[in-house]
Parts: sequence; structure tokens; C-alpha cells
Amino acid sequence: MTATAPTARTEARPLGLAVVGAGYWGPNLVRNFQAAEEFRLRWVCDLDLARAQRVLGEYSTVSATDDYAAVLADPGVAAIAVATPAATHLEVALAALRAGKHVLVEKPLAATGEEGRLLVAEAERRNLVLMCDHTYCYTPAVGRIRELVGSGEIGDIQYVDSVRINLGLVQKDVDVLWDLAPHDLSILDVVLPEEDRPIAVAAQAADPLGVGHACVAYLTLRLASGAIAHVHVNWLSPTKVRTTMVGGSKRTVVWDDLNPQQRIALFDRGVDLSSPDQLDAGERRELMVNYRSGDMVAPALGEKEALRAMVEEFAAAIRQGRAPLTDGRSGLRVLEILEAAAQSLERQGALVPLPSVQRVGVAW
Amino acid sequence: MTATAPTARTEARPLGLAVVGAGYWGPNLVRNFQAAEEFRLRWVCDLDLARAQRVLGEYSTVSATDDYAAVLADPGVAAIAVATPAATHLEVALAALRAGKHVLVEKPLAATGEEGRLLVAEAERRNLVLMCDHTYCYTPAVGRIRELVGSGEIGDIQYVDSVRINLGLVQKDVDVLWDLAPHDLSILDVVLPEEDRPIAVAAQAADPLGVGHACVAYLTLRLASGAIAHVHVNWLSPTKVRTTMVGGSKRTVVWDDLNPQQRIALFDRGVDLSSPDQLDAGERRELMVNYRSGDMVAPALGEKEALRAMVEEFAAAIRQGRAPLTDGRSGLRVLEILEAAAQSLERQGALVPLPSVQRVGVAW
Amino acid sequence: MTATAPTARTEARPLGLAVVGAGYWGPNLVRNFQAAEEFRLRWVCDLDLARAQRVLGEYSTVSATDDYAAVLADPGVAAIAVATPAATHLEVALAALRAGKHVLVEKPLAATGEEGRLLVAEAERRNLVLMCDHTYCYTPAVGRIRELVGSGEIGDIQYVDSVRINLGLVQKDVDVLWDLAPHDLSILDVVLPEEDRPIAVAAQAADPLGVGHACVAYLTLRLASGAIAHVHVNWLSPTKVRTTMVGGSKRTVVWDDLNPQQRIALFDRGVDLSSPDQLDAGERRELMVNYRSGDMVAPALGEKEALRAMVEEFAAAIRQGRAPLTDGRSGLRVLEILEAAAQSLERQGALVPLPSVQRVGVAW
Amino acid sequence: MTATAPTARTEARPLGLAVVGAGYWGPNLVRNFQAAEEFRLRWVCDLDLARAQRVLGEYSTVSATDDYAAVLADPGVAAIAVATPAATHLEVALAALRAGKHVLVEKPLAATGEEGRLLVAEAERRNLVLMCDHTYCYTPAVGRIRELVGSGEIGDIQYVDSVRINLGLVQKDVDVLWDLAPHDLSILDVVLPEEDRPIAVAAQAADPLGVGHACVAYLTLRLASGAIAHVHVNWLSPTKVRTTMVGGSKRTVVWDDLNPQQRIALFDRGVDLSSPDQLDAGERRELMVNYRSGDMVAPALGEKEALRAMVEEFAAAIRQGRAPLTDGRSGLRVLEILEAAAQSLERQGALVPLPSVQRVGVAW
Repeated sequence: MTATAPTARTEARPLGLAVVGAGYWGPNLVRNFQAAEEFRLRWVCDLDLARAQRVLGEYSTVSATDDYAAVLADPGVAAIAVATPAATHLEVALAALRAGKHVLVEKPLAATGEEGRLLVAEAERRNLVLMCDHTYCYTPAVGRIRELVGSGEIGDIQYVDSVRINLGLVQKDVDVLWDLAPHDLSILDVVLPEEDRPIAVAAQAADPLGVGHACVAYLTLRLASGAIAHVHVNWLSPTKVRTTMVGGSKRTVVWDDLNPQQRIALFDRGVDLSSPDQLDAGERRELMVNYRSGDMVAPALGEKEALRAMVEEFAAAIRQGRAPLTDGRSGLRVLEILEAAAQSLERQGALVPLPSVQRVGVAW
Repeated sequence: MTATAPTARTEARPLGLAVVGAGYWGPNLVRNFQAAEEFRLRWVCDLDLARAQRVLGEYSTVSATDDYAAVLADPGVAAIAVATPAATHLEVALAALRAGKHVLVEKPLAATGEEGRLLVAEAERRNLVLMCDHTYCYTPAVGRIRELVGSGEIGDIQYVDSVRINLGLVQKDVDVLWDLAPHDLSILDVVLPEEDRPIAVAAQAADPLGVGHACVAYLTLRLASGAIAHVHVNWLSPTKVRTTMVGGSKRTVVWDDLNPQQRIALFDRGVDLSSPDQLDAGERRELMVNYRSGDMVAPALGEKEALRAMVEEFAAAIRQGRAPLTDGRSGLRVLEILEAAAQSLERQGALVPLPSVQRVGVAW
Repeated sequence: MTATAPTARTEARPLGLAVVGAGYWGPNLVRNFQAAEEFRLRWVCDLDLARAQRVLGEYSTVSATDDYAAVLADPGVAAIAVATPAATHLEVALAALRAGKHVLVEKPLAATGEEGRLLVAEAERRNLVLMCDHTYCYTPAVGRIRELVGSGEIGDIQYVDSVRINLGLVQKDVDVLWDLAPHDLSILDVVLPEEDRPIAVAAQAADPLGVGHACVAYLTLRLASGAIAHVHVNWLSPTKVRTTMVGGSKRTVVWDDLNPQQRIALFDRGVDLSSPDQLDAGERRELMVNYRSGDMVAPALGEKEALRAMVEEFAAAIRQGRAPLTDGRSGLRVLEILEAAAQSLERQGALVPLPSVQRVGVAW
Repeated sequence: MTATAPTARTEARPLGLAVVGAGYWGPNLVRNFQAAEEFRLRWVCDLDLARAQRVLGEYSTVSATDDYAAVLADPGVAAIAVATPAATHLEVALAALRAGKHVLVEKPLAATGEEGRLLVAEAERRNLVLMCDHTYCYTPAVGRIRELVGSGEIGDIQYVDSVRINLGLVQKDVDVLWDLAPHDLSILDVVLPEEDRPIAVAAQAADPLGVGHACVAYLTLRLASGAIAHVHVNWLSPTKVRTTMVGGSKRTVVWDDLNPQQRIALFDRGVDLSSPDQLDAGERRELMVNYRSGDMVAPALGEKEALRAMVEEFAAAIRQGRAPLTDGRSGLRVLEILEAAAQSLERQGALVPLPSVQRVGVAW
């Protein structure tokens, strides 16, 4: 971190912050940044001034504005939280980075991989924190799955199956993959170890309403290890399902986000093969299969609000001059999968290889 | 029905029947055929005589045998129920048809589409009933879904999503698609109307145990109407899920077979588009989307055992000289989807068109 | 409404309000009164000034104070929301009423029936609104149950069963009945029609931790109609259950507050007796019982926050000079049941009759 | 075991058995005794011969009869299983005992405690096995709960709560307590340790249909230790619930019999009090309460049919000359609770002490 970003290193005082975009997600950011001691919310900025005022309500001392330039010019502002439509992320975030501000961007990082790469490069060049608000990655449930996978308790990953369906707002500008799959893909990005990185994508989808893009979609990721990850997203389902299953050679973890009393279930049940590597093809037909029929454990999880933890990680990354868990590169990997999935859809579900993205931290 | 099958038309007396194959499924057939007034169980036949005896138990007056030729030669036997391994279906069922017996075959109809076609042709040539034991098609739940779709209450079908996962017996000879997907595919076969017939298949799968074939698989069917049907089958899941969702333009029905108190839920919730056909591409971006937020109804269903209803349909088809609901052609359509799925797997998930199969009744 | 409460009738302007008590429940009141256009929050008052300030946070224009007299002296304050410990409700609310303020009191209305009667009398004498914050009564679910019972759709009430168990905060000053049962009793108070008023109470309880009062308790209410209502409250249960079942002669409604996708289920299933009144005792043994096995309907409910609706009812009652749904008398009826239950506990579960309380509106 | 019961000791051969009563429960006994190697089913006896024949079906070698005397005279019959109406248990079972047969009786043991005592005395006098078919006691779930309580893993029992509600067959002769509560009471009888024996009973009930006896009932048991057990039985509930919770000082176990994937859940969550014994009454108000917020474990359970295990226990008790788990005395303890509950109902829910029953094994 150099002199180009002096405001970001003042450890003692709260970090001055502005929220840009007072639409759907903005109010959640406003509420959480106000509750965080690490930050001092100074501005809520929206092209529609009345909307910015409405988000703040009648009892607030925070300033509403429609003048983004004034916000960027405020030396008391060390960081910008961007909650504008995805199509504007490049412009808004780039301006912030160029003004020397750390930036948090609502998912997806940008409208295209190309734009995402511009943002990552700009932030790295300036030694500024660029973070993507992949909120689910900060839930206690995902934190626990990360631990279970990272510690080896799950064993080798065999398959991942994620379902995120609900009667959802049919978006005009993006299909259901761009709207919902970033949640699942960002979770996979922080949960899967290096050897299970996605290497290719196939997608199938339908537009039964005739809105011009997919409302129901299925995504298959081939992982480097040979395992498979599958994502089902759907705007039309009358029932809400949010379940992610990570099957491993030792344990399987099932996350049901709609079951607050038992979000995470860790199963010691599964199928083992007796040393398949030592068998020739003929012998392999005589499978030596063993079944484990062990207990299920539902670990006690805290109920800390994910947005609160995300805000704390943003502050910590700025203070410590390090990449946050869901940094720009993580956001970029998600974008690249979405773009490959769009290509697969155009090619009737053909498997599309992913560009390689180095999973390295920001080099300060 | 002609003189070639005289035993099948004696209406007054129960139909003499033999069960061939006393393995996993045979005992269920034995129990249900014994309980059915329409049939008189005469033989249980297995290459392993002791196994046949064991299925009958110590209190039975039914004969156990390992002599299939003697069973076929018994003029009191009008029908044969085949519960041997799939690889033997062609041989066992063909011999029965050639002996003038009506035949019920455990799913899948045969080991290949080619074999299935031979059986269908033989049965049609001889005016004999050839039925596939697609048991789920005879559940009260599937019956109700058929009614809901057929009566137009669901509206146009928009998507179908079926999940059948469980810690299952890893088969040596067949992959998880051939083992489990016939259930879902046979259900779709009786539920979907003509205009929603599958026309192409794409499949993705993984073999994380290294057993030599897929243990986790995803199947996408493109329907003639443009809608999509998706099937998830998995032998490795520690939790059991059996859910089929049929999304329609008017209603959506969700079948959860593991919730006996509420197997079928009919939702009056969904998304409508205001006359999309009248919009040009430009206007379509300004979507006129309406959300219905109506009630859910869980209709009262009987709890009649599906196998019992299947047995009754077999008897009725024989008595009335008509094709049963799940006739040989239905079994053949399922086989053809499985074969196309296998091709898709070899081609990394590419979309494979289905051969056209006429969905016509058997012409007596 | 007379000149003694002039501030309450100015329809055009928001009603000035103070929240007294910044403990467990206070922050919820602060948040909801701030969000309500009908009110203008002017003060948050607590003996612990720092706690009042903490509730308001760092961005608020509302005043924190520990000077209740100053709050009462503020002519801009038309109403007081009391969220102090129950033991202080009499003192705090009485002072407010005597200062001509409308009063909202957190449940229970007061520490004893005697104190509750004093508050009701004072409010009625002064034509001021006295409302008890029985929050659950303002949920969409309870609103729907009220409609279903009131419209006759349920038929005659046969039984009510309510379960409210959870790992809860073991209170020092009150037992589990006084802590949790007011929720169930206040719901019954607004749901049950006049002819189903409770007339007697029996209670059973245990104190397995040895804390000096009940941690697990069961309450049985005999209703005037002969029906029964039962309440199970428990601080020690590791699982959370919040279910209320209202069984009727025509329908039964089950409210599961922990199932957001299906909070209310209306069952057309039950048992009917063929004209039992026309049978003599001998015939009655030959019961003419019929079973209805109809559908279940889960009606679409809004997800409006109950506290918000409660705040609106408080405003509407003040504006319209009428008793709110959960007025002081309603709070008093709940208190009287709790006191009778305490007597029953002392008498090993004997049935204790309830004092009669007129269920009439406040006479302005 | 003496020469009076010689048939019962022949270890090598199966025990000859007759089932008496071919009504609701009889077919289940016939099926399970036929499947058990330990027994040889010789007769099914019913006053209605056709009914006995119907239970056996058309393929059985077992004899149907309406001549009970002939059954008792058959020296090949070592044991009688009684599945006749409760009012006839005394007569049928007494005759069997006097004929030197071991006896299994469907629950409840007899129509009254007095009758039950006669049966127990007769069996003990003759050194014959008298067993009550408390089927639930032989489920893997109850077996596991017994282990958890017996091993001390649960700690001291704090409360038991059991719910058994369903749209049930309204009985003509018995109320819902006599019909359903024997299940819960027999489970408690085998699960609770000596120091938690019930010592008194209070009951509340309602007859909203006017059938002449209770259709909804609540039973409270005071245990010797000071803990409480509560049972809710209901014939009118449109939803089915079968849940038993055993709360302990160390763990709490919840048995949900309708959740096959997770019947038993063991919670390491609860409330501890810091040495309450060392506190005086004044200090006790300042509770030193600690909350444990540990994991939940759902142990793997087998799915063995309970009736099968019950049949095996009957055989083992006969072979080994010992009392079975649910012997006549256990059945008698259940009867005595039911009789005390009936008295409590007559006395408006007053607490009724239980007669003391020695929980000792049969002295052979």
C-alpha cells in the first residue's frame, strides 16, 4: 500500500464510506455499514436523490446526494460500496478506484469478463482493495463447509449439487443464470480446493415464458479432479429450495439454508470401493463395494448475519492491506464461468472449457 | 385376440400365472399376485430352486421349480411375470411369448432398444399383452398428475424437474442412469401429452468411485414443445430425495414421494407474461410480467399399493384384449432415451436426437 | 375523546411518541416506530442513558434520555410505548396515562391482575388508548385464523392445541407460563368467539433445574362451549416448535410459524357424528361416525411484519378514538388466566374457575 | 420351568403356535409368526371362520378354525397369541394359561387392572410366559432410547413429552386414552429407570363430538424423581404426529417416528444450573444459568420391523424361561395408569396417586 491511497491506512479511526446505489440491495448495505464500528457511513448516493433519502429515512444524520463526483472528492471517504445495476459497475467502480478509494461491488463483479479484468487490473495497479459482495460466502454455513473441506474431513470431493429455486423476479436484462448462479458459483469458489477447480462448463436452459432468455437453467461444471458440480437455478418454481450438497469420499455435507434448526448436516454414510486402482478392468466388474452407514451430525452454528461478516472482512482487508476472501479475482472467476455457460447454451449444451485464471492473492 | 392365445380369454376363472426370477423384486410380485383375485399363482421359477422355495416360505401351496420349460408347457399358465436380470429379459420373455403367454417384464424392458423392439414386435404379432412393470406409474400420485396435466389444469408444461437420489446399491452391470432413470422416464412417458414428447437428450455424469460407469448423472430432455425436463439420479447421496415438479402455465404440481401426508401439492403460484407474442424484440425487454400468488392445495390421495394397481392393470389388459398403460412400446421409448443418453455421455454432453417412436396402442 | 388529550386528535401530523425501556424489546419498537409514517419518534428513555443511546446508534436524530419526567412533560409526545420490566409496568404506564398520554405496554400488561385492573380503569376514565403489545395477534397467520373462525368456515371449535417450546432464556423473576404463555393466550383471546371463552384453568408444571419456578408447563383451558384448549410451553427443549391447531367441526386449521412456505394449513379432514343429539345412551354406543378425507389448502399469506401492523393499529385506535384489537381488557383477561394457572399449580393441577371479565370495548 | 409346560422347552424344534382373533391386528401377527423360524404357526382361530380363512388367504397350509377348545387341546401348540377385543382378553388368555400354553396378548393386557392382575398371577403360578404385545417397545428407536437413558448419556431425566395424534378410528368401547396412550405408557415403562417411575397421574380430556367418551386427551405423570411426563393423544387431528422427547440434564433425545431418515435426534443443547444445591433461596434468584449449544447427532438405526423383534423376544423368553421385556407386569403397570387417569378425568383433572407395582421379573 503506497501513498496513492493514504486514507485507507488510518487504523485508529473508522473508515469513511459511501454507498452508491439505493435500489434493492443498497438499504441492506446502509443498515450494515451503520451497525459496523469499523466504518463511518458518510453518504448515500443515487441518481435519484429522493430514493437515496428514502433509504436513509427521516431520522438519519447521513447525507443523501445525487452527486457522485462530490462523493469521490470527499477526502473523508476511504471506501465506496457499489450497489448500482451490473451494467454500470465498470464505470462506477473504475471511477472510485481512480479516486484512490477501496471498492466493494455487489455481485456480479461486472457485466462481462472483459470489464471484470479491467477492474481487477486497476485495483492491483493501485494497491487498492477490490472486493465482490458474495454475501453467501460469509454465512456461518459456508464457513463451516470451507473448514470441513479444507481440513480433509470430507475427503476427496466426489460431486457437488446445488439447487436455488424460487418464484423469483424475472429480470429484464439478465437470465436466471446471471441472476442466481453467482451465488452458487461464488460459494464453490471459496469452498473447493485448488485441485477441484472447474475446468469446463455445460449448460442447458429453457425460456418457457418467452421472455427472451432463460428462466430455468442447469449448469454442469467438470472439475480438474474429474468430479462434477451441478447447479439448478429456476425463477418459476413455486416452492423455495436452497440446498447445496458436497459429496466426499469420507463424509457428505448437506446445507439446507431454509432449515434454520439444522442448516448443516454432516453424514458419515456413503459408498467405498476396495482399492479400485489395483483392479484390472475385468476384476472391476466384480466390485468390492462397501457401504458406510454411520451417524449424521448437525453441528451447532452461530446465526451471525452474513452481511455483517462481509463488512468486517472488507474492513479487515483494507486495514491489513490484503486481499479479501471474495476479492476481484474471485468475482472474475465467477464471471468467466457465466460467460462460458452462455456459450454452452448457444451451442446446445456443448462442453466449453474455462480460461485459466490464477487463483493468487493480490500482490501488494 | 385370436385362437393363438386361448388361455387368456377365460373370463370367469383367475388367470394362471408364474413368476420367473426370485431375486430382489420377485418376492414383491409373488405377494401381490397372491393377493389379487384376478390371478392364480401356480409357479415360482428360478434357476436357484432353493431361492424360489425361500420366497414362497414354509406355508405355501404354490410350486417352486427351476424348470422354466415345464412352466411354459403348463396349459394352466396364461401369463408370465419376468423378474430376472435385464440381460436375460429378451430370452425369457421371448420364450414366454412364443409359448403363447402374456408377459409382464420388470423394468427396463430389455437390455437394449434392439432387444426391446424384438419383444414388442413378437407380442404384437401374436396379439399378446406385453407390459413393463413401471411400478411408479401406478401410484395414486402419478395418477393424479396425469389427470391434472390431461385436464388442462396445469396449463402448458413449462418444465419438469425430477430428483431421485439416495444411498443406493452400486450396480455392477449398469450405471445409475439405467438403474434409476427408468422410473422418472416412465413417469414422464405416461404424464406428458403428445406435444411434449421428448425429442432430444443430453446427459452429464461422473464416476467418482472409479467403478467404471456413472454413479451420479443428470439428464436433460428437450421436449417437442420447447419445454425442458431434467432428471437427477445419484447412488451416492446420503439423503433420500424423490421429488418431481411439473411446472405449468396455470399451476405447478410438486410430488414429494417421501412426504406421505402431502405427496402432491398443487400451487397456484407463478409468473405470467402479458401476451409476449404480440411484442417485438425491442418491446420484449420491457416485460409485462405478472405474478400469481395463490393458494396451495394438497389433494387427498388414496394410499393404494402401486404394485397392486399394476397387477390389476395387467389382468384388465389381458381380459379386455388391449394395451396396458405401460405397454411394451412405453418400455421401448424409455429404452431409447437411455440409449441416447449413453451416446450423449460419450460425446461430453452433446444433445442427441431421439428416434421417433409412434405412441400408438397395440393393434389387436 | 375530550380536551384532556388534545395531542392525540391532530390527524394531519404524525403522533409524537416516546419509547421507554431500551432493553430486549425496545430496539424492535424503536425500529418500527421510526418506519411508521403515523408516528414521529421523539425520545428513547431508559434509566441507563448509555443503553438508550446504544439503541439509537450513531446516526440518529432522536433524543436519548434518562429523564422520564421530561418525556411526560413534552407536549409533543402523544403516546408512550412501555418496554420496561413487567414489575414496573404499573408505575410507568400509570404515570403516562395521568400525563394524558396514550399507552402501549409490552406483554404482559402488568405484574398482577390487580395492577392490570388499575391500568384499565385509569385509561377508561381518561378516554385514553391502553394497548397491550400482543405482537403475534398482528401476524397475517393469526389474522387469517380469526377470519376462518369468525366466518364459520371452521365450524364449532372442538379443541385448540398450542405448543411453544424452545431452548429459551430461563427467567429469574417469572416462570415459563408467565414468560411464554401470554403469546398463546393472547392469540386465543382474539381468535376464539364469545361462546368459546375460557371459564376454568388447570396447570401442570415441573422445575427440573431447581430454579425455583416452572421451566416446563402445560395449561388446560375449559371453554364455555365444552371444548378444550391446551398450551405447552417449555424453556428446555432443544428443538423449536411453534404450532397452534384449531380443530373445528367443519375444518381444522394448523398454524406452523416455523414453516414460512406454509404457515397456515386448512384441512378438510375430520370426523363427523350423525346427529348424536337424537341418540339415547344405548344407541350412542353404536356410533354413526363418518370420516371426511378432503384436501388441504395452504392459503397464500402476506409476510407483513407483525410489529408494523401492531404499530398501525395503535395509531388507528388513537386517531379513531376506539379500543385497539388487543386493548387493556384483552391484556387483563390474559393476566387473569395466568393468575388462575398459578393457583392451579399450587393445588396440584386442580381446575380453577376464571373471574368473569366483560369483553366489551372501551366506552369512550 | 417345570413339567407343567413341557412343550416350551424343546429347543430344537419350532414352537407350535396359534393366533386367536383375525381382526385388525391378527393378520400382522400371522405374517410375522410365519416369517419367524422360531415358531411354527398351526392355527388361526376366530369365532368367524370365514374371517380366519380370509386372513390366511388361498395359498396357505395353515388351518383355520372357530373351535378354540380344539386349539387348546392340540399338544403341538406351545403358545397362543391373543388378538381378540380387550374385553375378552381375560377369558381367552386365562383359558390358554390353564391349558399350559405361553401367552402373548395384544395391548392392553386386559380390560381392567383387576383382570390384568388375575392373568399375571395365573401365569406366575404356572411358570408360563405372559407377554404383552407392546410393539413400539421393540422398534430400533425405542431400543436406542433405552440405551441412551440406561447408559447415563442422557443424564437425569427432566421431562418427557409424547404426542400421538392422528385422524383415528373413533372407538365405540374405549376412549382415546385407552386406545392410544398404552403405546406411550408402555414405551415409558421400558425406557424410564426405576427412580423415574410414575407415582401419580392427572388427566384432562374433551369429547367434542359427543360420542360419550374422550376423543382428545392430555395425561400428566408425576415421576418419583420430581420430573414430569406428558402425553397428548387425539383422534381428531388431521395431521399425524408421533413424537416423543426425553429431556435430560446432559442430552435430550427426540424421536420422530414419521421421519424415517432421522427418527432419533440426540441434542447436546440445554440449560445447566451452576450447583443449585449450594445456593440458598435468596441466591437462587440470581441464577447461575449456563447454556450448552452443542451439536445434534442422528444415529444410524436399523430398520428392523418391530413386530419381528417382538416375536423373537417371545420365543427367547419361552426358550430361556425368563420374563420378556414387556411381560404381564409391564402390561399391568400400563393398565393401572389408565385406570388412575380415568379417575382423574372424573375428578376434573385432580392428581391421582398410582398403586405401587413391584417392577420385578417373574420368579420362575
